[in-house]
Amino acid sequence: MDVISVIRTKRDRGELTPEQIDWVIDAYTRGDVADEQMSALAMAILLNGMNRTEIARWTAAMIASGERMSFEALSRPTTDKHSTGGVGDKITLPLAPLVAACGAAVPQLSGRGLGHTGGTLDKLESIPGWRAHLTGEEMRHVLDTTGAVICAAGDGLAPADKKLYALRDVTGTVEAIPLIASSIMSKKIAEGTGALVLDVKVGSGAFMKAIEDARELASTMVALGTDSGVRTVALLTDMSTPLGLTAGNALEVRESVEVLAGGGPQDVVDLTLALAREMLDAAGLKDADPEKALADGSAMDVWRRMISAQGGDPDATLPTAREQHVVTAPSSGVLTRLDAYDVGVAAWRLGAGRARKEDPVQAGAGVELHAKPGDTVTEGQPLMTLHTDTPEKFDYALTALPGAYDIAPAGTSFAPLPVVRERIA
Amino acid sequence: MDVISVIRTKRDRGELTPEQIDWVIDAYTRGDVADEQMSALAMAILLNGMNRTEIARWTAAMIASGERMSFEALSRPTTDKHSTGGVGDKITLPLAPLVAACGAAVPQLSGRGLGHTGGTLDKLESIPGWRAHLTGEEMRHVLDTTGAVICAAGDGLAPADKKLYALRDVTGTVEAIPLIASSIMSKKIAEGTGALVLDVKVGSGAFMKAIEDARELASTMVALGTDSGVRTVALLTDMSTPLGLTAGNALEVRESVEVLAGGGPQDVVDLTLALAREMLDAAGLKDADPEKALADGSAMDVWRRMISAQGGDPDATLPTAREQHVVTAPSSGVLTRLDAYDVGVAAWRLGAGRARKEDPVQAGAGVELHAKPGDTVTEGQPLMTLHTDTPEKFDYALTALPGAYDIAPAGTSFAPLPVVRERIA
Repeated sequence: MDVISVIRTKRDRGELTPEQIDWVIDAYTRGDVADEQMSALAMAILLNGMNRTEIARWTAAMIASGERMSFEALSRPTTDKHSTGGVGDKITLPLAPLVAACGAAVPQLSGRGLGHTGGTLDKLESIPGWRAHLTGEEMRHVLDTTGAVICAAGDGLAPADKKLYALRDVTGTVEAIPLIASSIMSKKIAEGTGALVLDVKVGSGAFMKAIEDARELASTMVALGTDSGVRTVALLTDMSTPLGLTAGNALEVRESVEVLAGGGPQDVVDLTLALAREMLDAAGLKDADPEKALADGSAMDVWRRMISAQGGDPDATLPTAREQHVVTAPSSGVLTRLDAYDVGVAAWRLGAGRARKEDPVQAGAGVELHAKPGDTVTEGQPLMTLHTDTPEKFDYALTALPGAYDIAPAGTSFAPLPVVRERIA
Repeated sequence: MDVISVIRTKRDRGELTPEQIDWVIDAYTRGDVADEQMSALAMAILLNGMNRTEIARWTAAMIASGERMSFEALSRPTTDKHSTGGVGDKITLPLAPLVAACGAAVPQLSGRGLGHTGGTLDKLESIPGWRAHLTGEEMRHVLDTTGAVICAAGDGLAPADKKLYALRDVTGTVEAIPLIASSIMSKKIAEGTGALVLDVKVGSGAFMKAIEDARELASTMVALGTDSGVRTVALLTDMSTPLGLTAGNALEVRESVEVLAGGGPQDVVDLTLALAREMLDAAGLKDADPEKALADGSAMDVWRRMISAQGGDPDATLPTAREQHVVTAPSSGVLTRLDAYDVGVAAWRLGAGRARKEDPVQAGAGVELHAKPGDTVTEGQPLMTLHTDTPEKFDYALTALPGAYDIAPAGTSFAPLPVVRERIA
């Protein structure tokens, strides 16, 4: 087996054999296939595609490159969620304790933000004392005692994916459905969850701008999960406008706590409940009542125990940014569009996100929205507040915003997109 | 300017701007663009192509990465030849002294063999004492005193191409017409020749198997040369069967000396004369008579002086391989096909070629042919003799040969392909 023949096969639109896939993933993990060879193969895959058989084998080979966790010894059924990433997407924070409060166990291995989308670990790290890195034993203990754990994946889980993900990031080969699907699913299958709900974002603020691409990614991932014995469902959800009223680390934790307290923006509540129902259904807990668990405070109780178990103080004051800048409405009327991508880029530039993996993030930075599409606004009223510790970034952040919204004359009819657009199972 | 946006442009089928091309070639040469980024770009170029404007700029940027030679101070006009590589292609050896004997100066920067095609420098190094590596001053001196020089390119010539060529070799990105054309032409234009004849091989033993691809490569290179002020012509020549009766280093030197002595196989003589006429025409020497220069020994005189000037002994006995194995005809009839690729692979496996750039080659190894397509053969007569110093390689070399030839019943009509198939100017 040699790597050039593998590259040539895909370059010339052939189908990779199971032996070629197993060999190339293993040799790349061991360092026998060089980065420059794998990136050429990744570009050939991006441009020429892989069929479902190839994607399944590729995913299996990435799982086999590391350890596979198992939670079968737990008394509760496990169920997890993965989002493909969006702006203001804090759903994991209220969702994991909510589902745990309803009787399932949620072993969430999460990631950090890169580019304009936020990362769950970055958000939780704005809570004083909270630790993302747990040993396998600590993870099991938190899960066992609280019903939910959100932490970073250990180095032993799908190491081939870790290496390939970092390579794709610097070689223009991120946007390939076969590689995105196998990356996500290798981690989730290796994580050992029994059920999985995929939140596939579609719209300007998502990686998938077109619903056809989102559908293809979702059905590819559902097939991968199902074939591996994980009960898998996908929801295609709207990411044309930010979720909720905040984009930024501590800002989103605050909003998540509002949802757990029975309040919060309606779109965040609706999506949290929709995903909770799917996760509980997939785990076989058909009679669970997540609305009740939000209303009666039991989800909040799990949240407090989960944060404490990982060293965080659920009662601590969250960090706030040192400086604020208010953007006002330039005219009166109906807000008909508020672009998720533009708001995400502004939040990122304010310090909420990172340009490189090794960059730090600001806990308090981000964008707070005072109106959402469909709302009536008056000229001069606050439209959004920008938060940062480094006010010299305001100008750069503001350049992302002039085309971010449309205000139509008062009385213009407005039909919002539903939060959940399609279900794929 | 950042490399990911350059990669994405080509990945998404866009046209690279002059600024993007200049920047990426310069940054890659300096090491600011990594190998894994350049290989992803190379694969995107292979699959999505470059137009003539992009190829011209890419070539100019590779030339600008290093020094550019000039032979304008010479009293004779310069003219050179480049072959895209084939099996038994020893033409440079008799051609360079022949053209010099007719009054032109031939500054030949040559390469080594890789894979199943041989390299001019490997062939000449089988002559005891001959040196491929000359300083710029030595090169000029040999050219000035003998009219021809064949040597390795110095490190200062198109360093971007050197780096990119080595990268393409290990990443499955060799077979891209824009990259092949710019690689060849950047070196030839930087070399400073006033005229250039391209021998673009087509057939099983060539990189270009199809005449359409060879035509596209040839016309791309002719345009690049012409636009850079080099009078450039291309011949598309047949490489479906080996040139002459030998494939291997010392074996091919022996055959070249036969041609210079007025003998040698007809196809080698014909192609040498055809290319000599083109080179002399392009150099403005329309009245030169290369047939006479072969017949009267003046080409042989230049050969002897050229070899001596680079430390070689033109009278030395050439190395021969320690072991021989004869392949006989399995039936009687007309040899209608003798495959260039299969013979090239056999010669390579016997030790005439190398698998990696750092491997040594055997001077005596190779294949000697006793019949060519169109010849009548008798069952049991020698068809070819395999030569090697390492007889354990016979079995591996023999596995390349069962499908290498066809013998048809006696009397079967046979129409050979002409050696020169097309001319592109």
